[in-house]
Amino acid sequence: MVNKLKEFQSIALYSSKKSKRANQIFVQLIEIAENLNLNVIHPSSSSLIPSKKRRLVSDNYVKKNADIVIAIGGDGTLLSCSRKYGLEGLPILGINLGNLGFLNDIDPTSLTDNLLEILKGNYTVDNRFFLETSINKIKSEDIALNEIVIHSGSIAQLIEFEVYVDDTFVYRQKADGIIINTPTGSTAYALSGHGPIIHPEVNAISLLPMFPHSLNTRPLIVNEEVQISIIPSKRSFISYDSHTKKSINRNDVIEIKKTKSKLNLIHPINHDFYSACRNKLGWSLGVPNKSESVNE
Amino acid sequence: MVNKLKEFQSIALYSSKKSKRANQIFVQLIEIAENLNLNVIHPSSSSLIPSKKRRLVSDNYVKKNADIVIAIGGDGTLLSCSRKYGLEGLPILGINLGNLGFLNDIDPTSLTDNLLEILKGNYTVDNRFFLETSINKIKSEDIALNEIVIHSGSIAQLIEFEVYVDDTFVYRQKADGIIINTPTGSTAYALSGHGPIIHPEVNAISLLPMFPHSLNTRPLIVNEEVQISIIPSKRSFISYDSHTKKSINRNDVIEIKKTKSKLNLIHPINHDFYSACRNKLGWSLGVPNKSESVNE
Amino acid sequence: MVNKLKEFQSIALYSSKKSKRANQIFVQLIEIAENLNLNVIHPSSSSLIPSKKRRLVSDNYVKKNADIVIAIGGDGTLLSCSRKYGLEGLPILGINLGNLGFLNDIDPTSLTDNLLEILKGNYTVDNRFFLETSINKIKSEDIALNEIVIHSGSIAQLIEFEVYVDDTFVYRQKADGIIINTPTGSTAYALSGHGPIIHPEVNAISLLPMFPHSLNTRPLIVNEEVQISIIPSKRSFISYDSHTKKSINRNDVIEIKKTKSKLNLIHPINHDFYSACRNKLGWSLGVPNKSESVNE
Amino acid sequence: MVNKLKEFQSIALYSSKKSKRANQIFVQLIEIAENLNLNVIHPSSSSLIPSKKRRLVSDNYVKKNADIVIAIGGDGTLLSCSRKYGLEGLPILGINLGNLGFLNDIDPTSLTDNLLEILKGNYTVDNRFFLETSINKIKSEDIALNEIVIHSGSIAQLIEFEVYVDDTFVYRQKADGIIINTPTGSTAYALSGHGPIIHPEVNAISLLPMFPHSLNTRPLIVNEEVQISIIPSKRSFISYDSHTKKSINRNDVIEIKKTKSKLNLIHPINHDFYSACRNKLGWSLGVPNKSESVNE
Repeated sequence: MVNKLKEFQSIALYSSKKSKRANQIFVQLIEIAENLNLNVIHPSSSSLIPSKKRRLVSDNYVKKNADIVIAIGGDGTLLSCSRKYGLEGLPILGINLGNLGFLNDIDPTSLTDNLLEILKGNYTVDNRFFLETSINKIKSEDIALNEIVIHSGSIAQLIEFEVYVDDTFVYRQKADGIIINTPTGSTAYALSGHGPIIHPEVNAISLLPMFPHSLNTRPLIVNEEVQISIIPSKRSFISYDSHTKKSINRNDVIEIKKTKSKLNLIHPINHDFYSACRNKLGWSLGVPNKSESVNE
Repeated sequence: MVNKLKEFQSIALYSSKKSKRANQIFVQLIEIAENLNLNVIHPSSSSLIPSKKRRLVSDNYVKKNADIVIAIGGDGTLLSCSRKYGLEGLPILGINLGNLGFLNDIDPTSLTDNLLEILKGNYTVDNRFFLETSINKIKSEDIALNEIVIHSGSIAQLIEFEVYVDDTFVYRQKADGIIINTPTGSTAYALSGHGPIIHPEVNAISLLPMFPHSLNTRPLIVNEEVQISIIPSKRSFISYDSHTKKSINRNDVIEIKKTKSKLNLIHPINHDFYSACRNKLGWSLGVPNKSESVNE
Repeated sequence: MVNKLKEFQSIALYSSKKSKRANQIFVQLIEIAENLNLNVIHPSSSSLIPSKKRRLVSDNYVKKNADIVIAIGGDGTLLSCSRKYGLEGLPILGINLGNLGFLNDIDPTSLTDNLLEILKGNYTVDNRFFLETSINKIKSEDIALNEIVIHSGSIAQLIEFEVYVDDTFVYRQKADGIIINTPTGSTAYALSGHGPIIHPEVNAISLLPMFPHSLNTRPLIVNEEVQISIIPSKRSFISYDSHTKKSINRNDVIEIKKTKSKLNLIHPINHDFYSACRNKLGWSLGVPNKSESVNE
Repeated sequence: MVNKLKEFQSIALYSSKKSKRANQIFVQLIEIAENLNLNVIHPSSSSLIPSKKRRLVSDNYVKKNADIVIAIGGDGTLLSCSRKYGLEGLPILGINLGNLGFLNDIDPTSLTDNLLEILKGNYTVDNRFFLETSINKIKSEDIALNEIVIHSGSIAQLIEFEVYVDDTFVYRQKADGIIINTPTGSTAYALSGHGPIIHPEVNAISLLPMFPHSLNTRPLIVNEEVQISIIPSKRSFISYDSHTKKSINRNDVIEIKKTKSKLNLIHPINHDFYSACRNKLGWSLGVPNKSESVNE
């Protein structure tokens, strides 16, 4: 961690939502970058557009010319930014709007210091894989950093599906759907569905049926190298990071596996996954200093 | 899988419990081995003692002279056998007494066929790590294939403890205890405590508080390479595979990590983890063919 | 239980789905009834229509003239039958198609014996309340025997809502939705969402957030006499027994309470709720006779 | 709630643990009581002993002469106080040491005001039943306000037991034990074991297996009027409120039912169960005002 890594000269600024707060950070970032004589790139797909006249560029241009993309916003913005630019190794850094995220961990109150260190090469790189799919052997362009969900489309409506891991039959389930998530996604939607927290360094994919008909279902954690196949027995839907949603047909074969290349998520040197857990999940609040039982 | 692996010439027979059924399989195994002119080794620590006069040998002798140890009994016998002989690479094969186990997967009804194939080198090797501990930097001789449990010793009695992963603070918990389990242990005690099922090929360790005082606790899956430290704030107990139980003191530092060498668990060629899950966990029963909801 | 209850002279036959099996039982029931000189009523809303020319009557006619309605089918048919005819005390009896239900507990293989006993007055009456709602003080006609679900309409989409019990604030939640269910519904959809099983004689309503954002949420059981108010902070949906679904607006006040009159569900004398649980939920399979642990 | 209830003239002061903080409140209470010319009773079984010479009396004396017992301490003290004095209707009031309890809800910072109101008759009475047991038809003197636990005595040790409700067979379970709890106990140990929260006004008893061997087990809520029988198949233990623990033998018949008389728990007029839940369980923290998903 002591060795300096690559410095960043050309930075792209991105957000998926407009807000006053995001815009303020955006302006601040432009100023910092200009003071450092960095090249600032503005993708036209960002919701943050500079007030001065500047060139808005295509996503392709960003991928070719940026050294790093800075996502300004919540984890939602970072997810969107990662799916857009992160698949081929372009580093992504997240700056939140005041609420620590699991992914965008730089706070606006310590933006300048953290950023200067990172631009100089003092940072860590956190590799995260995406999930990609093929449907009936045709590869989909959609990817997910958090989770793929295959579901009935409606709450309280069962679908039935078969699950295979590397062509070995696992089970046949009736449920509202099934979540297939990465370690990154284990602190997102899957966590609300009673899934375990999986540290980003665990090489695993999690399978989690939603409202399963059978009471003896449990979350299942498999090696990240496997291919998961899901075959629904009636028309259903597939969604990627709760973002893109497409319909799938009865007996379609949905194959899910990790992408070969991984997201390069940039963190400050002092980044700490467990600290983020304590903050975001309220662990720090769970145990008061005074000795007392739940009922005391 | 097609390549033949090492053949076995010298087999040790072991069980941790006496039973008529186990003895019958024991006798049958001796006959098969004698017909094949194999060397049969009888550890004195086994509960199965041959009726004819034969030499009973030490565990050390087994480790030096056996090519494989065959455990006859439930998964409990296989756990005991593995802790005793399996740490330095000696292959272990399990023959159950009629109930398929997660670990001892050869059924007595297909014993001869399976065994002949395996002895000839047609088998797969399934590597499973153990957990080892040190207490205040002094390494313990006890190891666990399933799980380490640190607990108050009594049901419905809280202990409080701090958890660190590679010296990074994770959380401070109040609970009856905490289960630290391997993927192997994920289908054992941890499963009863709402832990996820972890496929044996996932390189992970699971941390699962028992009756946690805090409601926002979830199972936590970490990389198998980490060292987990637990510091209880009062006198507690540590147990290994629910087998050995020792007391630990307030502020003792319990360090838990995987063993460097792994168990070589032998399976027939057609072994299938998910099939064992369906059988043992009742998954095969969860979804009847007829279309019906839970309440239909 | 020994005293004879009211005999039934006029029986209505109902099903919500067409099937060969249902039709066969339907024909058998008509024969039994004709042999006993009972009056058989055919609602036009039933999917089972007699082959001989017979008068098809309105639901209103059924309510005025039938002594009992016999539902032929799964629990889904019994739910539909109960909502249609059961609110004002008309007894309902369920005959299943071969799969024991929680509600329709007479098996086709023992139909005649059970039915003759029941028609003679040898039966038990099981009272089940419905849930009714008002939206912004306007009472809805829809009722639910199992559960009311207020939800975002889509999987993996949060709504935020406030919950009040008898005008006392309970909590503000972010979740995919919330299930409010009767004891009858505790073995249906709520069970898939980790809700507890509530015996039909418990005077309680259960509140169960679905995929709650907050990890410290638990199922909440309240007295059946309370009024539950839910105020969503954006456009959502309300559904009754996963049957009727209506949209609700931001800040609509949804008031939910039990109906004053209850369903009179008829059972054979030997009816046993726990036996149904063992059958339907696989409890009978959970503990094999042979002594073995999960991992043994 | 507007009508004044009985005033209290003779108050007993009780705590089960010694602490500086408890003693300070104890002294303050004596002063308030003396200013009001109330009779103050000091049970010798209390850990709080007045400094001035005063008569220490037996628990029997307390039951005959006190109008109310004030418990000073955590919910543990209130449990102990309730079991000791509360079974025959003597009102109990709880004053905590600064941490709001589910049972002892008067905070030291608002002690005087709350107390004066209550002594004048402005309070509410919250009725809570206890659980009593008989073992092989011999009634035990021990009672529990929270829960009865039948267990193996050790963590990670299975017992097997049969459960009957009013002589109807429910299930046979293998588990570390089973918790039978009141609504009062639903926010105590049972909550740590994934049990539901049951409002004190629900007439119910909850059955919750601990680390059940079978995956299809769920919490079971039954009517408070039933008798629950548990028959362990080997030597086990029974504990009452995690306080008294006794051994039971193989095939002993443990019958559990609610006590006929109930605890009269006194609350200030503004007492609110849900507010206590939000405080104690962290519900108030679950949903920040800013819009964000778990992963945002």
